[in-house]
This record gives sequence, C-alpha cells and structure tokens, in this order.
Amino acid sequence: MGRFEEPPDPLFRRLNASVAFDRRLWREDVAGSRAHVESLHRAGVIEGADRNALLAGLDAVAAELDGGSFEFRDEDEDVHMAIERRLTEIAGPVGGKLHTGRSRNDQVATDLALFARAHSERALELTGGLMSRLLELAVAHADWPMPGYTHLQRAQAVYLGHHLLAYFWMLARDARRFGAARAAAVDSLPLGAGALAGLNWELDREATARELGFEAPAANSIDAVSNRDFVLDYLHAASVCATHLSRLGAEIVIWSSEEFGFCKPADDFSSGSSLMPQKKNPDAAELLRAKAPRVTGSLLTLTGVLHALPLAYSKDLQEDKEALFDAVDTIELCLEAAERMLAGLAFDRARLAAAAADEMVAATDVADLLVRRGMPFREAHGVVGGLVRTALELGVSLSELDRDELARHSELLDDEYYEVLGEGAWLESKRSQGGTGSAPLAAQIEAARRVLESLSEAGR
Amino acid sequence: MGRFEEPPDPLFRRLNASVAFDRRLWREDVAGSRAHVESLHRAGVIEGADRNALLAGLDAVAAELDGGSFEFRDEDEDVHMAIERRLTEIAGPVGGKLHTGRSRNDQVATDLALFARAHSERALELTGGLMSRLLELAVAHADWPMPGYTHLQRAQAVYLGHHLLAYFWMLARDARRFGAARAAAVDSLPLGAGALAGLNWELDREATARELGFEAPAANSIDAVSNRDFVLDYLHAASVCATHLSRLGAEIVIWSSEEFGFCKPADDFSSGSSLMPQKKNPDAAELLRAKAPRVTGSLLTLTGVLHALPLAYSKDLQEDKEALFDAVDTIELCLEAAERMLAGLAFDRARLAAAAADEMVAATDVADLLVRRGMPFREAHGVVGGLVRTALELGVSLSELDRDELARHSELLDDEYYEVLGEGAWLESKRSQGGTGSAPLAAQIEAARRVLESLSEAGR
Amino acid sequence: MGRFEEPPDPLFRRLNASVAFDRRLWREDVAGSRAHVESLHRAGVIEGADRNALLAGLDAVAAELDGGSFEFRDEDEDVHMAIERRLTEIAGPVGGKLHTGRSRNDQVATDLALFARAHSERALELTGGLMSRLLELAVAHADWPMPGYTHLQRAQAVYLGHHLLAYFWMLARDARRFGAARAAAVDSLPLGAGALAGLNWELDREATARELGFEAPAANSIDAVSNRDFVLDYLHAASVCATHLSRLGAEIVIWSSEEFGFCKPADDFSSGSSLMPQKKNPDAAELLRAKAPRVTGSLLTLTGVLHALPLAYSKDLQEDKEALFDAVDTIELCLEAAERMLAGLAFDRARLAAAAADEMVAATDVADLLVRRGMPFREAHGVVGGLVRTALELGVSLSELDRDELARHSELLDDEYYEVLGEGAWLESKRSQGGTGSAPLAAQIEAARRVLESLSEAGR
Amino acid sequence: MGRFEEPPDPLFRRLNASVAFDRRLWREDVAGSRAHVESLHRAGVIEGADRNALLAGLDAVAAELDGGSFEFRDEDEDVHMAIERRLTEIAGPVGGKLHTGRSRNDQVATDLALFARAHSERALELTGGLMSRLLELAVAHADWPMPGYTHLQRAQAVYLGHHLLAYFWMLARDARRFGAARAAAVDSLPLGAGALAGLNWELDREATARELGFEAPAANSIDAVSNRDFVLDYLHAASVCATHLSRLGAEIVIWSSEEFGFCKPADDFSSGSSLMPQKKNPDAAELLRAKAPRVTGSLLTLTGVLHALPLAYSKDLQEDKEALFDAVDTIELCLEAAERMLAGLAFDRARLAAAAADEMVAATDVADLLVRRGMPFREAHGVVGGLVRTALELGVSLSELDRDELARHSELLDDEYYEVLGEGAWLESKRSQGGTGSAPLAAQIEAARRVLESLSEAGR
Repeated sequence: MGRFEEPPDPLFRRLNASVAFDRRLWREDVAGSRAHVESLHRAGVIEGADRNALLAGLDAVAAELDGGSFEFRDEDEDVHMAIERRLTEIAGPVGGKLHTGRSRNDQVATDLALFARAHSERALELTGGLMSRLLELAVAHADWPMPGYTHLQRAQAVYLGHHLLAYFWMLARDARRFGAARAAAVDSLPLGAGALAGLNWELDREATARELGFEAPAANSIDAVSNRDFVLDYLHAASVCATHLSRLGAEIVIWSSEEFGFCKPADDFSSGSSLMPQKKNPDAAELLRAKAPRVTGSLLTLTGVLHALPLAYSKDLQEDKEALFDAVDTIELCLEAAERMLAGLAFDRARLAAAAADEMVAATDVADLLVRRGMPFREAHGVVGGLVRTALELGVSLSELDRDELARHSELLDDEYYEVLGEGAWLESKRSQGGTGSAPLAAQIEAARRVLESLSEAGR
Repeated sequence: MGRFEEPPDPLFRRLNASVAFDRRLWREDVAGSRAHVESLHRAGVIEGADRNALLAGLDAVAAELDGGSFEFRDEDEDVHMAIERRLTEIAGPVGGKLHTGRSRNDQVATDLALFARAHSERALELTGGLMSRLLELAVAHADWPMPGYTHLQRAQAVYLGHHLLAYFWMLARDARRFGAARAAAVDSLPLGAGALAGLNWELDREATARELGFEAPAANSIDAVSNRDFVLDYLHAASVCATHLSRLGAEIVIWSSEEFGFCKPADDFSSGSSLMPQKKNPDAAELLRAKAPRVTGSLLTLTGVLHALPLAYSKDLQEDKEALFDAVDTIELCLEAAERMLAGLAFDRARLAAAAADEMVAATDVADLLVRRGMPFREAHGVVGGLVRTALELGVSLSELDRDELARHSELLDDEYYEVLGEGAWLESKRSQGGTGSAPLAAQIEAARRVLESLSEAGR
Repeated sequence: MGRFEEPPDPLFRRLNASVAFDRRLWREDVAGSRAHVESLHRAGVIEGADRNALLAGLDAVAAELDGGSFEFRDEDEDVHMAIERRLTEIAGPVGGKLHTGRSRNDQVATDLALFARAHSERALELTGGLMSRLLELAVAHADWPMPGYTHLQRAQAVYLGHHLLAYFWMLARDARRFGAARAAAVDSLPLGAGALAGLNWELDREATARELGFEAPAANSIDAVSNRDFVLDYLHAASVCATHLSRLGAEIVIWSSEEFGFCKPADDFSSGSSLMPQKKNPDAAELLRAKAPRVTGSLLTLTGVLHALPLAYSKDLQEDKEALFDAVDTIELCLEAAERMLAGLAFDRARLAAAAADEMVAATDVADLLVRRGMPFREAHGVVGGLVRTALELGVSLSELDRDELARHSELLDDEYYEVLGEGAWLESKRSQGGTGSAPLAAQIEAARRVLESLSEAGR
Repeated sequence: MGRFEEPPDPLFRRLNASVAFDRRLWREDVAGSRAHVESLHRAGVIEGADRNALLAGLDAVAAELDGGSFEFRDEDEDVHMAIERRLTEIAGPVGGKLHTGRSRNDQVATDLALFARAHSERALELTGGLMSRLLELAVAHADWPMPGYTHLQRAQAVYLGHHLLAYFWMLARDARRFGAARAAAVDSLPLGAGALAGLNWELDREATARELGFEAPAANSIDAVSNRDFVLDYLHAASVCATHLSRLGAEIVIWSSEEFGFCKPADDFSSGSSLMPQKKNPDAAELLRAKAPRVTGSLLTLTGVLHALPLAYSKDLQEDKEALFDAVDTIELCLEAAERMLAGLAFDRARLAAAAADEMVAATDVADLLVRRGMPFREAHGVVGGLVRTALELGVSLSELDRDELARHSELLDDEYYEVLGEGAWLESKRSQGGTGSAPLAAQIEAARRVLESLSEAGR
C-alpha cells in the first residue's frame, strides 16, 4: 500500500480494475517484460543470474497462462500486476526487480501496440482471404449479365463479376489501411519512457525496439505514454472495412428477396423463423449490415476519451482497451463470415439475365449513337428522354417503336437504333478501361490477381 | 431443421448466436412466457392442465437459472430457445405449446422492454442516491466560500454548497429522462403482435399488458416488432447522465491537483503508481470523466443500426442488446461509484477560502456600485476595466488603489468602494433567486429537498 | 476594451466571432431583452423613462432586423453585441443600461431555450402533418394486400394501410419526444443567473419566467449558465425522428425498384440522370434515408463538447448553436418533404397483390390449423417446414400438394388445409388486436385519428 | 425535362439542390472538365474546333466565377449544371458536347477527390507551420523546469520544452495521416467510369489521370462512382488532429487558471466578459478544445451515410460534401489559430519553477537510489512510499527527514539521499533516450528539426 492507509473500496476496485478484460494482453505483456529484462541486463542494471531467473520465471508464468492453470486473484488489479505477482511467487524476491526502470504507463502502451500490430496483421490476412473469394466468384461469374443500379434503379447492364470486383477494390483499400495501422503500431516503442519523463537508467532503447519489432524508440517520453493514435488508426481501418461489408450485406439482403431473386444464401448460413415455417432468412448478410455502427462506435468512444485530455498519462486511457477488443473481435468475425457466406451463395443466372434484358438500360447507348452522328450529347439526351416517355406512354419497349416514331424524334435514327438495342451490345460496348465489357473486365481480373499476389507476398 | 437440409455452419453459428449475452434476459423471458401461457389459457387455446404443466415447468427452469444449475447447450441459439428447450425436457411435449401465437419477434421486444423498464428504475434509484449525497454535501459546505469559474478563470465567489447543487439539478433532469425511458419501455406491449402481422388467435392483449405492467398493447403489429425507440430513450438518458458525471469527474480531477488543492480523494478511492511512490491519483474521478463517450457510443451504435432498416423485424435488431447492456452496466457503476467517491472526498476549507479572497472576483460588484449611482452599466464596466488594468500595472490589489486613483477613474467612487471590496460582501450581495447568497441558497436547499422527496415517493 | 491593451487579432476574431450564425437568434434576443427591461424597471433599477426609451429602441432595432436593413459591423462579435450596439446608437447612452444585472452567459442560454422551444413546436406541427398524411394514405389503402416482410423476406401478408400506419406510430412517439424537448426548453429560465453566481439586484425572476413562457426561474445560477440539456433533448428527438424517416426512405427506394415495383415517386419529386435518359430516381426518398446520420452527428457533436467540461460557462458552449441550427433545418425540411413526397407517391395495386399472393406467406396459418387440431405448435412448425421443403423440391405451390402428400406429413391435415391457403384468408385471420385483419385495422385507424386529434388540440 | 412531365416541386428542389454548397467545387469542376475535353478530343470524339470552343468557354466561365460576376440561377441544381448551362450560353450548342462520355457520378467523384487533395495539402502545410512554432517554443523553453503530470498530479519534473515537443510528435503523425489522405484522394481517377458501367468511348484514361495528377484510372467503374473512402481518410486525419489540438487547448486553459498560473494568453487572443470587468478569458484555447467533436461528427455523418448503401451511386452520397467542407474549414482555422495563439502565449518561468521544486516529484529517484544499492525495485517502491507517508504525517518535506528517520525506513539510505533530492538532479538524471534530461532533449530537438525539414521538402 506504500503511502496509503486504507485498502481500496470494493466499489472502487470494481470501477478501477481492468484485469477482467486486459488479461487478453498477457502474451504481449510477457513479450515486453522479457525484452525489458534483457535491456536491464544489457545496461548492467541487473546481473546475469537475475536475468536468468526472471526469464525462467516469465516462461513459467506464460506456461500457466497458456495452459489455463493461471489463477487470477481478487487483488490483481490488472494483468500486469497479476503477472508480476505470480512471477515473484515463482521466482522469489528477484521478481521485484522486473519493474525497475519501467512504469505501468510505458508498459501498457507497449503491450497495446504489440496487440494492435498482431491484429492489424490478422485483419490483413482475413481481408486477403475475402478478396481472394471475391476474385474467384468474379471469375466464375465474369459473363453473367445483370442490371447495374444507380439509385437502386436499373441503370446500365453489367456483368456480375464486374459488380463483385467493386468489393474487391474496397477491400484492397481496407488492406492498405490495416497496413497503415500496423505501421502506426510499431512506429515508435513506448517502453523506456518511464512514467512520463524518461528514466534514471540509460537503457539501449534502440536494441529493445529492434527486438520487439518497432521501427525506433519513441522520440518523446511524454508523448510515448499518452499516445493512442495507433489504436485510432486501427479503429478507422476497421470502421471503414465494416462499412464496406455493410454495403455488401445490404446488397445480398436485397438480392435475396423474392422480388429480386438474384441469389440465395446457403442453408448453413441462413436461419429459419421460430414462428413461420417457410422462412429462410439471410441472417449473416443482415449481421454484416448491422455490425458497422458498432465498430464505428468504438472509434467514437476512444476519440471521445482522448478529447480534451491533459498530458501525460491519465486513467481515462484505460478505456482504450474494451473499445479496441470489441472492434477486433467484430471485424475479424465479419471478415471471416463474409468469406464463408459468399462461398455458399448461389446466384440465379436466369433471374439476373431476365432483369438485365430490360431495354431501358440501353437508353444511354442510343444517345451515344446520336452523338456519333454529330448531335451534341445534351441534345441527344433530350431526344432519347422523349423516346423513353413515348414508349412508356404507349406501353411498349424501346425496340418496339417503329421507324416513323423514331423519325418523329430525330432524323438521325436509323436501323442501327435497333442494333444498339440488341441485348449484349450494351455490355460489350462498355469497353473503356475499368468498364464492364469483357475485354476491360479480363484486364481488371488480371490486375486484381496482381494486387492479391503482392498482398500475400507482403504478408509473408 | 424444418425446411433446411443442412445444419448451420459453426462460423455462422458464432456470428448468429446471441445466447452468450442475451442470457441475462432470462428473468424477463420467463415472466413474459408465464403471461403468455395465461393468455393462451384465457383464450381457450390451451387447456388448464397444459397451463399448469407449462407454468410449473417454467418455474422449474427459472429455479435452475436462478440457482446457477441451468446448462446452456451449443445448439441453444438464444436464451429463448434454451428456455423452451429445457422446458420441454422437463415438462414433456406440452412444452411445444408455449410458442403458439407468439414469434421470436414480439417475444424479444417484450423481454427487452421489461429489461429497459427494470434498469430505468434502477437508474432512477441510483440517481436519487447521488442527488441525496450531493444535497448532504451542499448542506455541510453551504458557507464555504470558493471562487466560481467561467472559462476556468476566477469569476465571482460562490459557496461550495451552491456549486455542488449545480450537479444536483443536472441529476434531477437525468432522473426525469430515466423516468421518460421507463414510460417509453412500458408504453405499449409488443407481445401479441406475432411475427409482424398479428395472430390467428384472439388473445386478450389488454389483460396481458396489465399483467406485465404495460400501459396498453402495441397498436400496430409491424411497429411492435421493429420498434426500439425505448432503448434509444434509455441510451439518451444514460448518455446525458454520463456526460454530467464526466463534468463532475473533470472538476474533481482539477480540484485535486496540487495547484488547486481544493480537495483530496479518499485513500480507498485512489490509486498509487507502479513506479512513483509518492502518487495518489484520483482514478475514480478520471474514470467518471472517461466513461461518457462509451455510453454515447452505445447510443450511436443502435441509432446506426436502425438507420435505413426496412420493416418489420430484421436480424440487425439483435445488435440492440450488447449496446444496451454495456450502457446499463456502465451508468449504474458510475452512479454508484460517484456517490461513494463524493462521500469520501475531503475539501480543504482554507485553500478554497484563500482562492475566493481574490478581490478581482468583486469587479462586477464595483461596477454595480457605479450603476446604483446612476452610471449606465456599459460605462461602469469600462470604468472598472480601467481600475483593473491600473491595479495590474501597479501590482496592487483593487482595494489598495487610493482615493485619488479612484477619482481619476470616476468621481462617483467613494468609500463604499472599499466596503464593496470587503470579503464576504461579494457573496452575500448575490441575493437574487437562484443566486449563491446565503438566503437564496437556503431556499434552494429546501427546494432540492422537496424534489428529492417527490422523487423518492414516485419510486415507491 | 476595458482591461485590454490590444484589439483582437483578426484570426482570433474569425475563430471567436459567432455573429455569422447566431444572428438568427435575433427575435429571441429582442424578446429576452424586452423582458429584462421590464424586470429592471419593476425592481426599480431603471426608471420609467429609461424603460420606455429602451423598449422603443429595441422595437426600432427589431424593425431593422425584420426588414433586412440592419447592418452588422465587423466589430460585432455576436448578435447580442450587435443589438446592444445598435440600440445605443438609436437610443443614446441609456442603451448602456440594458445589460445591468445580466451577463452574456444567462442571456445566451435564455435565447437558445426560446429558440429550442419555437422549433420543438414547429417540429411537432410538421410531425402532425406527416402523421395526417400517413393516416390518409392508410385509409385509402386499407384493403390493399401486400407481403409483409421480415429479414426482407416475404413473411405474412398485410394490408398496405397497416404497413403505412407503422410509421404513424413511430411519428407519434417522435411527437412525444419533441413535446419533451419543448418542456425541457422552458423548464427553467436562465435569465437572472448573471454570469454564474446570481445578481446584486433582486429582480422578480418569477414574473420574467411567466412573461417569457418558462415554468420557473432556474433554481441554481451555476447550472443555469452551463446547462444545455434542453438542446440535447431536442437533438435526441430529431435524431430518432430522422432515423424513422430514413427507414421510410429506405423502404420507398426498395419499393420503387423495377424488381419490387410497388410504387413510383411523382415526377415532381424525382430526378433524372445527367447521362442516362431513361432514369427516374427516387432522390427524395434517398435523401430521407441519408439525412439521419447528419442529425445524429449534431447530437454527437454537442455531447462531445459537454464531455468533461468544467463549470460554469466556458466558451466551448458556443459550439452548441451550429449543431442545433443544422439539425433544426434538416429535420424540418425532411418532415415537410416526406409529407409532400408521400402525397405524390403512386402505389401499384396489382404488383402488390401479385406479391402478396405467394402462398408461402400462409405457412404459419397451416401450422395454426394443426394446433387447432391439438398438435403442439413446435411440432406443427416442423410438419409445415416439411411441407414447404417438399413443395420446393417438387416445384409446386403449397396448395398443389395432394391429399396423399399431406397425409404423409400429418394425418391431421384435411380439406381445411386448402381453405386456409385460400387467398385473403391469411389476412383476415389476423384478427387479434393490433393485427392486420380488417377489423383490428379499422380500430387502429380510429385510434390513430384520436391521437391526431389530441395532438392537434395540444398544439392549439 | 426529357422523360418528365412535370417540373420539380419547389420543396423537392430545396431538398435536392446542392448548388448552395457545392459551388465551392467550381475550380475542381472546371479543371476536370478541361481534362475531359482534351480526352474527348484525343479520342476523336470531338473535333479540334469544338475542343477549342469548349476550352475557351470554360475559361470564360472560370473567369466569371473567379471574379464574382457569375450568376447562379434558380434552376441550377448543382455547380456542375450551372457551369454547363453558362458554358452553353457563352459557347453555344457546342456546350452540349461537354457531357459526352461523362456522368454526374464520375464527375462529382473526381471533383471531390481534387478538392480533398488540395485540402490535404493545405492541412499538411498548416500542420508544418504549427510544428515549426512548437519547435521554436521548445527551443526557447528547453531549460525551464515544470512539473510533469500524470492523472493531473505532479509526477516528475520535466522541461517545458520537452512537454511542448510532445505536441510536435502528435502533429508529425497528423502530417502523416494528411499525407495518406492526399494519397487516397489521388489514388485512382473516377473520371471515365461513366454512370457506373464504363463508357461507349475508348478514352485514354491513363493520360487524363496523369493530367489531373492521379496515380491511375480507377480499376472498376462501379467502385469508382460509389467510393468515398478518400473523404473518410481525410476526415479521420482531421478528427485525430482536432483531438490533439483539443488536448493542447485543454492544457492551456488549465495552465492559464490563476491556480496554475503557468501561462497567460496574449491580449489579442483573449476575450473579456460582458459583465465582469476583470476577466481575461483564454477563448481561443477553449475553442480548440471544443472543436474536435464537431470534426468527429463529420466523420460519423459520412460513415453513417455509407452504412448499408447499395452500389453504385445513390443520391445519399450528396451528403458527403457539407460534412467534408465543415471539417476542412474547422481544422484549417484551428491549425492556423493554434499557431498564432501559441506565438503570443507568455509562460511564467517563476511559477513553473516553483511548482517543479516540489520534492515529491523526486520520489522515484530515491527509489532508484535504493535499487542501485541492490534493493529490488518493488521493495524500494514500498520503502519510499513509507517515507512519503511519514513526511506527510510530520508535515515536512522529504529532505527534512533526518538520518535517524531514514534509517528507520532503510539502512541503505545515506547522504546521497539528500543529493538525489537536490533540485535539478531530478531532471538531469532522466538521460535515457527520449527523456527530459538536457542531453536527450537536445537530441530530440535535432530529430524534430530533421522531421520538419523532410516535411517541408515533401511539400515542395
């Protein structure tokens, strides 16, 4: 208790203690402690025998934690205290030397950075897995026509493979963001900053940084203990990624409706209803849709905690952990589930094709025909708008308008009008780079493959 | 499995299952099921023997849950399924009659409303406890002068009791909001809405509403299963209350600094430092300050989930529970801890008084003196601004300016100037209603007492 | 400048000045100033002649503001300073008496409360207008069958009128929340609190409260100037209401798709495409969907500003205004636009009916038939699940299964099975209170009418 | 009107039109249009004369916009339409050719990316300016002792320069994030994606990308028009940066209090009080503290808009602009104001030094003395805790404890105890890398200088 006369009030302990959740940092804490022991030894602060005893003790503690036999006690306020307490039980008084030249403040920042790095890497891996699945599906459905939508109205026909690849590129950006989060986590090592002012011991922080996989020691001891930017960067990456998945989920929910009928979720990724025997619900897609605000909620929570917070360390920073942990669990589960859900999704080629055969999606192509004949686009747009209105009024399709009708709208319209309205023409004419035509789509698939390869190489 | 050919994928189960967290709704689920059994029986859907068997079975299940002997199984997707499964094991096939005329959709909405009601009431109780503590402290410190601050600059002197009562009135508004959340929770009973369309059975929903403590049955079955407004209302109340507590926490952190030295947290509500032996940190106050964004995060999460969600029930609504549970646990702990922390807080009368003796806080009173002598306030403000500047330049206090100096600023200044600057005068002159002077403060304390009484009567 | 030696830096002025946005509070500011003049006069602080001069001057200023001839100057930091400055120009030195016994802190809180009251009332009015439109549409479409959805899968048939009324009840709760926001705004009058400590003048705050329409003077002067709960309450009401509208918008977007084809927005509430001549986009519905996060963003902003803010007034509170103004403008526009958009929406009875004719939505009714024959519901659910699976495998509808097939699933199934599957039966059988059947729907419409009447009476 | 029979309802126009705010994109829109004209010409879609006429027309339009003579009309729904309309007025029917092979969807995404790039660069510049100011102040105050704080309790002494540099490193990370936002903005060019499916024209998108400063054309036309990740990246950078500034603001508010008295804001960056003549308030610091939630609110808004939004373009995306614009204006003003505010801030060396002379901040150094004598740190921590408690009980400073008292606590304590407690020793002993001692601080200043140089080189 040191300077204190009274033990903590049980209610205060309940408010203050973090061991219930920070125990999942034990691997990082042991790794950081091992590196710190080596550092103390290198600097001559502790002798070889102490070093050996501490490392052996830490190994024993880690083994208990890994094996599930470690017993947390009521008085263990956090995982760090629990580990030091147990170390001292195992190794004896030498355990009391572990915390030399270290504060809880630099220790916990280091542990959290190691955790953020590990889970940035895991997110990268899962993102890659989902990208891989999307690419595979895109290849398999590269020539399946479907309507492309704007404003959820049929706009122009696209290939399903092209649509699926839109998600590939979102996830490629997510991978970049998780990569940035990883870089932020290991940008600078907090350990060695002490409580906030630096240490009375000249430890070789460069060596410790190398050993733990950081770029360099933190340049400023005050910043080192009060910085949680790397958690915000992870949470940003996770929030955007979850938002992308919410769009995917929303589309699959819509596509799975009887009215669209574009796809059906697999039985093993659907739920029934407790009341209605006929129901097969796309629950996984709905949950992908629903989880994004929760991850964003974690980002807002930590941003809010940091708002207006004086330097250096304040207890408020303890609120970083649960926000991060929940986001990690959520995004990892969502990425994995999205990949499996997509694997089992069955698309209905006929329903997609029937919807894509709606001639209205070729209206722009008719306008472009007029443009090729010299009419300014804005005027051509008006002419075709008139054709559309006429067709709707007559209750016929665009290709059912006869030559006389066409002539009434523009003398530039001839038989090529009907060719343009021939199905398939609409899709293949989109041959600009990045477009849905077969040629640019094939090129896009190649580009996607290269991205995936370079991602998987980076991960190795 | 009914219409399904394959069991759920383990990953899907992990994404989909809610039993890990919704098990804490078991009391509400049993209560709702009991009422539903009575309702089925009243309507003649089930016979007396079945009713008795179901009620006895539900009692047995509840006893297991209460006693901790209930075993959840892997295949129990949620607490509702677990309870029905166990009921059927205990009571036999009659258990299969429980879900007649009920859907998971109206069932879960009912359970959640009962939970929201219970915790609105608990929050009301805890809010009342904290108000009571604040009032007690206000009475005990009703005549302790301290500087009142605006912009964290000393502005005018106030009594500490007056300052503490500011929090009393914030919490009185929180109590009103929790009361509104309670009313929203029991405004309309979802049970009887079925999946979304109503039931094939004419149950007496009015009777069930009365039995479960709701105002009336929900007027529209679709709204009944898709409505989570009552959770948003609770989360709003909790978010604002947590924000109030964050202001209290922030002030105590500042007041506990060596520089302010206005108060010291009790030993049993403080922490030491793992590195610095002299530290005694106001951790509880810091955590009060830090927890508000987390509660607001829960509000944002559920608001986000509901955004753009088609009717009626969608799986997305499952994300309501963890957001609510976390907010409930956080605000209840914070309210309780705030009350205990305040109980142990020791104010330093001398430090407060010394700070309050700063004559600058009486500048407005000097201006008002000039106003009483006929000078328009805006002009008087300028004159006193000049006096302040002169005093600062001369390095003296306002009362150290001599008569000649006063005359240079205004001929209306005479000896009453020095009286106005007499300590204590500043405080007692604030005798307007709601002001800090002893008389209005005594009246305020009386008013607070009445509010507390009516609150505690309402709670009975 | 009083105590200051230097004028504000232009950059500081840009950061600090609020006149660019707070000028829209001018009506409230003049009203508050008028009441304050009366109060000063009643208390004998100013004489009758001064009172008359100040009131006449304020009238003149108000006339300029109303007529658009008022000129704001560079040195007017906020609307309050601008009005006092102009008043003094018009009325002469007596203008300098206006700010006697008043601080910017209690003044601005009063103005903002008056503004929040006015716009709570406006929101109530607009909410009522939208409810009225929804009720009218519900009556007009009370017997139009459509599929009701859960998980965006067809679940059970409902009447379109019933579905539309779900939004009626959401808005009825919004009205209650706006009512609570109104009550919070006028709960306690800040004016008379002074800077934070109360006044040297004994003004009759009760009278001023009555005059300005507040319940009572604020009980505590510190709380009075630091309280913004009433803004949070308005923002909560607006955020939930906007979220409801986002659900309405999302449904109309989905229903307007070619695939659903349930409705078409009116021409004068749709947009075309700059490129695609055939497009008619439900932009208004999309914008209703999109605006909710913005309103919630305002709530987050102010909650964040208040987080950890020491008492009493701090400049941070200036950030309350733009958040509130943007939410007010957004929700008022959305409510008004939603009403007009719905007025022009054309539903397609045939498309709705065709979708509602999907026999699968009657599966629960078949299960209930078995229950009426004595089978426990859980077992009946399984039997019908098997029927559904068989029908899907055979590619037939439920009513196309023959008697032999039925017998294979349950001996309790007889010709009534085919009756239950007769269209219309499914809807009318939902005759429980709050259900979609014609009888309870008629009762619901009556109840809605009564709610609307009492709302409009309250508004008078 | 094309296919439409009726003009837009005025209310719809008010909801739908964006020209009131998107007009600030005019420079980007003209730049994008110029590049598009070149692209159409290169591909042979338009002839040289048309190209020349269009470019000349765009120049004329730009000149009007730049000069303030451009007149927006009621029917101009957005800035793009306004510019095309005016172009056609100036250049004649050829203006109708501008929109060939382009959709509003790829156009607006391109404009917004150009805007995000420009303001990422501006933020980088302003961040550099603030870093420069911080470094200058750090150098000027490199040897001014002050207490370093954890939990707002004095923890260990630091130099003011060291504390100020903590903000330097936060801003260095902000600069990196704004750099990432810039990279995200120009990562891939949307133009050429058309409405969503690509174009009927084979434009050279690589060339256009180069011309407009993008890395490459967007790989997928659907993603190109629905992607707003680059705005989210900017908003994240701005939100974290604003949060850093809120911590700086909060510290200056606290330091400016009479109780701390560490610094005084300059007259030209302070406000007085409308009521209290003595007040000099740190308004700028308060506003820095207050603005962060608003920027985070913008991030929440856009994330919310994107949540669950089906592909490709939907009108909801129009809500990206105001969120971005407000964040841009806020963060740019805050960065600029922070730099000016710091420039005028006057630190009080004597007050800082007096606070830093509190011997308690050397408690850790005493513990480290014991460690050097062989005592395990955990035990030493306990011994010094006892000394602290004894000193507090006796009401003396640590150095006033006599040798006998020391001996009672540990026989390892000798005269070096008193040396360790000699002022200055505490600071200079923190000689570990990144610590506050003069040597590592000098190294840190050098490192900061190098970072600033490389930043300013990158900006060139």
